[in-house]
Amino acid sequence: MIVDCQNVEFSELQLDSGEKISPVTVVYESYGELNEERSNAVLVLHAFSGTAHAAGVSHADGSTGWWENMIGPGKAFDTDKYFVLCSNVLGGCSGTTGPGSTNPETGKPYGLEFPFVTIADMVRLQKALVDHLGITKLLSVAGGSMGGLQVLQWTVSYPDMCASVIPIATTHRHSAQQIAFNEVGRQAIMADPDFAGGDYYSGPGPDRGLSVARMIGHITYMSDDSMREKFGRRRRQLKDQSSVFEVESYLRYRSGQFVERFDANSYIVISRAMDTFDLGRDRASLGDAFEPFGGRTLVISFTSDWLYPSYQSQEIVRALRGRVKDVAYVELPSSYGHDAFLIEAGEQTDLVRGFLASTFKKL
Amino acid sequence: MIVDCQNVEFSELQLDSGEKISPVTVVYESYGELNEERSNAVLVLHAFSGTAHAAGVSHADGSTGWWENMIGPGKAFDTDKYFVLCSNVLGGCSGTTGPGSTNPETGKPYGLEFPFVTIADMVRLQKALVDHLGITKLLSVAGGSMGGLQVLQWTVSYPDMCASVIPIATTHRHSAQQIAFNEVGRQAIMADPDFAGGDYYSGPGPDRGLSVARMIGHITYMSDDSMREKFGRRRRQLKDQSSVFEVESYLRYRSGQFVERFDANSYIVISRAMDTFDLGRDRASLGDAFEPFGGRTLVISFTSDWLYPSYQSQEIVRALRGRVKDVAYVELPSSYGHDAFLIEAGEQTDLVRGFLASTFKKL
Repeated sequence: MIVDCQNVEFSELQLDSGEKISPVTVVYESYGELNEERSNAVLVLHAFSGTAHAAGVSHADGSTGWWENMIGPGKAFDTDKYFVLCSNVLGGCSGTTGPGSTNPETGKPYGLEFPFVTIADMVRLQKALVDHLGITKLLSVAGGSMGGLQVLQWTVSYPDMCASVIPIATTHRHSAQQIAFNEVGRQAIMADPDFAGGDYYSGPGPDRGLSVARMIGHITYMSDDSMREKFGRRRRQLKDQSSVFEVESYLRYRSGQFVERFDANSYIVISRAMDTFDLGRDRASLGDAFEPFGGRTLVISFTSDWLYPSYQSQEIVRALRGRVKDVAYVELPSSYGHDAFLIEAGEQTDLVRGFLASTFKKL
Repeated sequence: MIVDCQNVEFSELQLDSGEKISPVTVVYESYGELNEERSNAVLVLHAFSGTAHAAGVSHADGSTGWWENMIGPGKAFDTDKYFVLCSNVLGGCSGTTGPGSTNPETGKPYGLEFPFVTIADMVRLQKALVDHLGITKLLSVAGGSMGGLQVLQWTVSYPDMCASVIPIATTHRHSAQQIAFNEVGRQAIMADPDFAGGDYYSGPGPDRGLSVARMIGHITYMSDDSMREKFGRRRRQLKDQSSVFEVESYLRYRSGQFVERFDANSYIVISRAMDTFDLGRDRASLGDAFEPFGGRTLVISFTSDWLYPSYQSQEIVRALRGRVKDVAYVELPSSYGHDAFLIEAGEQTDLVRGFLASTFKKL
């Protein structure tokens, strides 16, 4: 499946802060065909460092999509049956308008002049895209990690537009520990002199700080067990005959790759959106937030995920149950930690396939 | 209890690497009186960022010792009964010879020319100090975290010199995850241009990198629960009327304090010593390492400690049991995470007091 990404430009996007971004571009990919009734659309939402390239092989660079094991013909999100859509988030750095985009008022990249955006702002842009495609109701909205935050926001912002949602390995608000890990990443970036207050697009950029931030991320995405299995205490010889632990070499290599493709300002903008997300804020309870939502929910978490632990998914389930919503919850066994939602296709496939089929039947 | 630190200089210290450090100074404090038989000495070993100032109020700066709640008259390490000794580790930056000390060959600070040191090297220097004080057998050797690594090394390096040992919240070797957290700290330091390859003593020093490294440490020392209780999602207003999460403000404040008192090169030297520590290496099993040890052991871990999880303490216990050693193990309930060994004085006091008293009686 060779795929091309597409993009749409909107004249403006209203933000929660009161500011507007104009114009705003959103990049997306789609897989499968929209049926005549436009009733088979599934919106898939990516995690922190993800892109619109969720499945197939990119026409542009030959890369494979980040949820290739879950999206395609006969897979969990079966493209023989459903029209699957994925867009890059607002504030990102993979095509959709973000801090690296040109600010039309200055003719230069926004940098940290880019407005403060929220998870609800990201979802508002996704809604504009869905409207643009002529889809009035989504069969499902699904995603893990930060994608899951957006999934939950959909149920609150557009409660009548989702026949179902699938929040995976996620939370209705970040804990102090989750905020702390993000904050260390931000501090690592801002400590790099090449960050230059976010105005680095004509210079070298804060690669060292961004690399440290990403290393922290990698540790939190894996579990103690999966790191032991993958690296243990094995050592790897370097060119100069010295040696390092394999886990050190891996972290350096992977964070080096990340720096090539990710923008430090997007790291800051997006991680702040995640940290300030709090679905029950300004309401008596989380249940109040879910009250207007009329769709079905499948919540999935993973046993070894210590970054988004199962108790956070269970809080979502309890709040939905408290409002007598149609909600199913499964905690899947896995040793892969938070990364499990990207890796454990087997059981997720059974769950998602059945859930989508029964939702589709009930329409 | 006003205390002064003392120091001894030895002409040289042989290292595992084959190199020597000469001369070498060790700074220590002591509390209580050595009895006539010199049979009541307890050696207390500090954690990563600790100092020789374990108890009492420092004569020099008025600060309180890091284990003040455990050491003193009538406390767990009862200074009415025992002579308690604590020294700063080799490679540290609080008086004992380390990378910030003057290299006599160059007349300048060692910097990263400081030799590679191991936990066994640290213990060798402690042994020299104990010999210097005329103590031929220690009633006990006790410490948490990195102090616990040294405690375990004592049983292997000097198996006849310890009547008992108390390793707390520790491990016989770092896991890939523990190495990974240390490595990110090192990378954060080395990414700071002011690190200058470790040769920064005449310049500003890598304060920003060291600060990021310490923030990571702080997160790993606390638990998800203790961060939630201490900070939750509360916000703190800044002078410019903006606000940050309290956890962000706390991490910035505490890491700022740390940078004032800690040397980045010591961070690298000591964390490498911890990561390369592996008590069972080059032996058929961990039990083989403990075989010559004739003393008693009290192993303590804490339920919410995810940096040095209880399963690591249990591996130590199993290896000792396998060799029919006198070993007691207690997993204490606590929500404080790894920091619990510094905070939870209550139950630790009962355990340690009884263990020391019965060991003393059996001498």
